[in-house]
Amino acid sequence: MTEPYTLILLRHGNSDWNQKNLFTGWVDVGLSEQGVGEAKRAGELLAESGLAPDVLYTSRLVRAIDTANLALAVAGRLWIDVKRSWRLNERHYGALQGKDKAQTLAEYGAEQFQTWRRSYDVPPPPIADDDEYSQLGDPRYADLGDAVPRTECLKDVVDRMLPYWFSDITVDLAAGKTVLVTAHGNSLRALVKHLDTISDDDIAELNIPTGIPLVYRLDENFVPIEPAVYLDPEAAAAGAAAVANQGNKK
Amino acid sequence: MTEPYTLILLRHGNSDWNQKNLFTGWVDVGLSEQGVGEAKRAGELLAESGLAPDVLYTSRLVRAIDTANLALAVAGRLWIDVKRSWRLNERHYGALQGKDKAQTLAEYGAEQFQTWRRSYDVPPPPIADDDEYSQLGDPRYADLGDAVPRTECLKDVVDRMLPYWFSDITVDLAAGKTVLVTAHGNSLRALVKHLDTISDDDIAELNIPTGIPLVYRLDENFVPIEPAVYLDPEAAAAGAAAVANQGNKK
Repeated sequence: MTEPYTLILLRHGNSDWNQKNLFTGWVDVGLSEQGVGEAKRAGELLAESGLAPDVLYTSRLVRAIDTANLALAVAGRLWIDVKRSWRLNERHYGALQGKDKAQTLAEYGAEQFQTWRRSYDVPPPPIADDDEYSQLGDPRYADLGDAVPRTECLKDVVDRMLPYWFSDITVDLAAGKTVLVTAHGNSLRALVKHLDTISDDDIAELNIPTGIPLVYRLDENFVPIEPAVYLDPEAAAAGAAAVANQGNKK
Repeated sequence: MTEPYTLILLRHGNSDWNQKNLFTGWVDVGLSEQGVGEAKRAGELLAESGLAPDVLYTSRLVRAIDTANLALAVAGRLWIDVKRSWRLNERHYGALQGKDKAQTLAEYGAEQFQTWRRSYDVPPPPIADDDEYSQLGDPRYADLGDAVPRTECLKDVVDRMLPYWFSDITVDLAAGKTVLVTAHGNSLRALVKHLDTISDDDIAELNIPTGIPLVYRLDENFVPIEPAVYLDPEAAAAGAAAVANQGNKK
């Protein structure tokens, strides 16, 4: 056996819409210049750590794909196998997709705003099928057909992400491969919730910083044998605090 | 059924070593600035053609991977599934890897030079295992172990590429997927030789230009129903002539 297995989680860097303080969800927004820098820095951290991913998992969103490609190029591992799935996509933000976060906060108040952002099982209102930010008919989700999400709460993300964890990611881990998952704030929170058995209430407090690899060592049952470690703990703490403050921007 | 099936072949753009007129083979050289431009242009040609790849196949060499990523980003298809294999790698150039083409021509004469470049079944001398350009021990070929090539003729490339064509690529085609294969001069010549049933002698005359998608329409037996078409035929003719002239550089 080759456990402990190594799993590396990486949240994509700052995007054009993070920059503009808009809710993004499944809207396919590119990385900002800052995000490109964060991705390359993640590659440096990987290279310095000596961790060598054997297989890459990404969502179907370009900001995660670009982050992975930039990081792996810096780490000299661009040639590894790649698997992509909508199950690793960001949480679908429903009718809030494309909306300004500060404006939404002002319009609906702090309580409603925080509920949509951090409650475990209350999704935002569904997006209309004819909304410019709806994903209905997007060819990349052709296999979903009419089942493409119109909105999701974190619980919905857990429910659609975990089957992929068990069907695909754990299989590569069990084969002894070092797995890199490059995804999003909420799809990674869903996975961390599962790995660290965080309660539905406590997950609200968990913030994952962008661009800093988070390394798990897992036993043969895919249970962490020790707390996960960020490759740059100081930057990670600062980054998590910054995420927690989103929406408070003037 | 969904035939005719669509297969798109794309040779990576100009690399740093094309630029320097060195034999490359399995040495992992990046794209030149010109090559980056060619890759983006390939993406524009794909977008204009209306062809939408559903799955990408690449070699394990970064110049092919980067070409694909740049082209697909321009074409808005970076999110498609990806499969990589050493079976799509460039021909291993043996002891010539890293050697100057013009110098090799001067040293060995035109006949020997042309034999190594274009004979079907005469490989260059094998590379030494301790040569700086040997791939023995390269982690990306760990599954090959000691069977990693030391040199290859085009026949060797056909022999290791075709099993992958049948085991993987044709399966995606049969599923109705539009397949993009981004690879190298000789791995693509090997595939074209098979598709167009070109003889061992005549394949010497076939040159594939860089950066211009070549589109096949195949019947249910993966036989072309019409001659393959370059998306920019004029540029392709000029590019093929340029490839034929390699080694004649002063």
